[in-house]
Amino acid sequence: MVYLTRIEKFNAAHKLWVESWSEEQNQTVFGKCSNKNWHGHNYILHVTVKGTPDPLTGFIVDVKQLSKVIRDEVIEYLDHSNLNLDVPFIPKDMMPTTENLCMVIWKQLVNNIPAGTLHSIKLFETDSIYAEYLGE
Amino acid sequence: MVYLTRIEKFNAAHKLWVESWSEEQNQTVFGKCSNKNWHGHNYILHVTVKGTPDPLTGFIVDVKQLSKVIRDEVIEYLDHSNLNLDVPFIPKDMMPTTENLCMVIWKQLVNNIPAGTLHSIKLFETDSIYAEYLGE
Amino acid sequence: MVYLTRIEKFNAAHKLWVESWSEEQNQTVFGKCSNKNWHGHNYILHVTVKGTPDPLTGFIVDVKQLSKVIRDEVIEYLDHSNLNLDVPFIPKDMMPTTENLCMVIWKQLVNNIPAGTLHSIKLFETDSIYAEYLGE
Amino acid sequence: MVYLTRIEKFNAAHKLWVESWSEEQNQTVFGKCSNKNWHGHNYILHVTVKGTPDPLTGFIVDVKQLSKVIRDEVIEYLDHSNLNLDVPFIPKDMMPTTENLCMVIWKQLVNNIPAGTLHSIKLFETDSIYAEYLGE
Amino acid sequence: MVYLTRIEKFNAAHKLWVESWSEEQNQTVFGKCSNKNWHGHNYILHVTVKGTPDPLTGFIVDVKQLSKVIRDEVIEYLDHSNLNLDVPFIPKDMMPTTENLCMVIWKQLVNNIPAGTLHSIKLFETDSIYAEYLGE
Amino acid sequence: MVYLTRIEKFNAAHKLWVESWSEEQNQTVFGKCSNKNWHGHNYILHVTVKGTPDPLTGFIVDVKQLSKVIRDEVIEYLDHSNLNLDVPFIPKDMMPTTENLCMVIWKQLVNNIPAGTLHSIKLFETDSIYAEYLGE
Repeated sequence: MVYLTRIEKFNAAHKLWVESWSEEQNQTVFGKCSNKNWHGHNYILHVTVKGTPDPLTGFIVDVKQLSKVIRDEVIEYLDHSNLNLDVPFIPKDMMPTTENLCMVIWKQLVNNIPAGTLHSIKLFETDSIYAEYLGE
Repeated sequence: MVYLTRIEKFNAAHKLWVESWSEEQNQTVFGKCSNKNWHGHNYILHVTVKGTPDPLTGFIVDVKQLSKVIRDEVIEYLDHSNLNLDVPFIPKDMMPTTENLCMVIWKQLVNNIPAGTLHSIKLFETDSIYAEYLGE
Repeated sequence: MVYLTRIEKFNAAHKLWVESWSEEQNQTVFGKCSNKNWHGHNYILHVTVKGTPDPLTGFIVDVKQLSKVIRDEVIEYLDHSNLNLDVPFIPKDMMPTTENLCMVIWKQLVNNIPAGTLHSIKLFETDSIYAEYLGE
Repeated sequence: MVYLTRIEKFNAAHKLWVESWSEEQNQTVFGKCSNKNWHGHNYILHVTVKGTPDPLTGFIVDVKQLSKVIRDEVIEYLDHSNLNLDVPFIPKDMMPTTENLCMVIWKQLVNNIPAGTLHSIKLFETDSIYAEYLGE
Repeated sequence: MVYLTRIEKFNAAHKLWVESWSEEQNQTVFGKCSNKNWHGHNYILHVTVKGTPDPLTGFIVDVKQLSKVIRDEVIEYLDHSNLNLDVPFIPKDMMPTTENLCMVIWKQLVNNIPAGTLHSIKLFETDSIYAEYLGE
Repeated sequence: MVYLTRIEKFNAAHKLWVESWSEEQNQTVFGKCSNKNWHGHNYILHVTVKGTPDPLTGFIVDVKQLSKVIRDEVIEYLDHSNLNLDVPFIPKDMMPTTENLCMVIWKQLVNNIPAGTLHSIKLFETDSIYAEYLGE
């Protein structure tokens, strides 16, 4: 078993804001992240797949095809988007935290690559915060 | 003459959009950066000052004080902000490109540090684009 | 289960030196790291916690609070310190190697965050050496 | 159990090319990586060992000795080499993909360090592709 | 005057070898870089242009168009190439050192962007060597 | 004229402390940097030389020889040292700030490489502070 990781990037806006809370409560819990006018990040996404290298090509997967799937199914929707408003596969009542984004990106990818090969989604929101989801 | 650089960071949302243009024209010129719902970046700011090290302290400037000025005069306003809407020292009719941001950050800092010491403002918008302004 | 990592930094001095050994023996085992007058590093600390995102906030933990705990309980003591002499929670007879530092930082944090959430302490001593401790 | 990682680097040329395939087939599968005249990379190698820190030295292993083994047994052969042609421990019929390189580097190192201590070989081919092998 | 930099990357093989010299002389001067079977690098290219931001768009140049010119005129030829053999605009008798590459990349770009705007070509061969050329 | 930069690294301890000042005054000016028991950094040194590439070798200088000079004349003395106590070419009454270190490293190198070729000494103390000295 070998693990192969492809890194892709996207830039997006978001805010952390619970509609049913007061502005004060949002400010207390989310601080500056609750700015009504949004803020944003350069996100860095690590997608890890696992498998046995093909004896002829030496590939677990064709990394060019993996990159294309990530770009078609994830980056195309997230890059230069507003994560609260613009992305069909992000539920409108789901807070776009780094943790939750890992889980929706996993769901978006897992059925577009061979079954059993997706190992991990890791997402950097800044250079000091990242989350990882292993599918369970 | 020695040059000393302090790096600070901020995360912000913006869009590139000329009000007097049609949506199509904005899309043609600014592409995905014209998304009405905003997008954002992790900005990295390099502020460079110049001078002769003090014989006793070895300092051109006290870098802790320089850092405080940058945070009080720049980062406090820009971090977790919307660069088109929220920042008092960014004119509402000024496009918040990396180039223009360098110039307004220069203006914001130059009168808050000793005259003649500000040398350069360099700003990274992503890890593949940065701008620099030397004050003239 | 999602894993969330917060990165913090500190700068410190240390030396590797066994008191019961001769200078020659220390030099043989620890090389330049045994310099009696100390040397130092910019350490980079990754603290990883695990859990299920809160349905409302999307947080495993409040990363601002996690950051505060790391700074109050770890960085406050280690930053600009001498790791052999200055830190109350580093035993005086414990060699301040990257490996051992991971273990004492784990002990320092594990009782200050919700039980069962601390997953990993990873520490970079330089850009070519790092250690990781998972609590067992 | 603590994990300790040492990072070393090498620069090398390679191509991805199956001899029994037509040029067109190689181009289809490997794209630009099939250029007959080779291309190359700055590879970054992470070697992770595991163990319990020695009570006296605080070392899992002596990282200077680990570094020497990696350089003598791996880097000496791979640095400034052609991975398809020059390396005695890379089989001539093995495609030098990142995945396969992890496995041959593991084999090259596992008998040169104490039994049971090698934990992981991770190799970056570029800043957007890396593979990892855990020995099974 | 503001300076704007776009970063692009390419991976290539090369060797340093003077045909009129003996193998021994090449080895003495170029060391491992003279390996007959080539070696390679992940090159990182910084292209800096200068100008005054357009009052409406805030652009010195359209960075998307600048990126397209760099990719069409430079990266398309250099990426996954052999720098000694494959590149029409690298003279066959020119040693593909980082210094010389900066100069040929300058020549390749200077006539494809508005006159007087090209400021600097900076090229990283590894993370410890880079060269810069300012056109004179 | 082309500029070539070689990067080398060293780890060292230091403190900022004026002997003729009280402890309180040192604390006020230097903050945590005045810790009597020292602290330390992973320093990153950029040495830039300038010249015209040799028509045959494509070299401004032989970067391997430049690297050897930097290591023999600078790194050998600074690595794993105490910058206040251990380094013959750092005056005992000179504060080892990043600014001053650039100037003494310049003096240490300028007579060991061909006259007129040294262009710049840039030194990173942390990933958010660096200084540069151009020799005048």
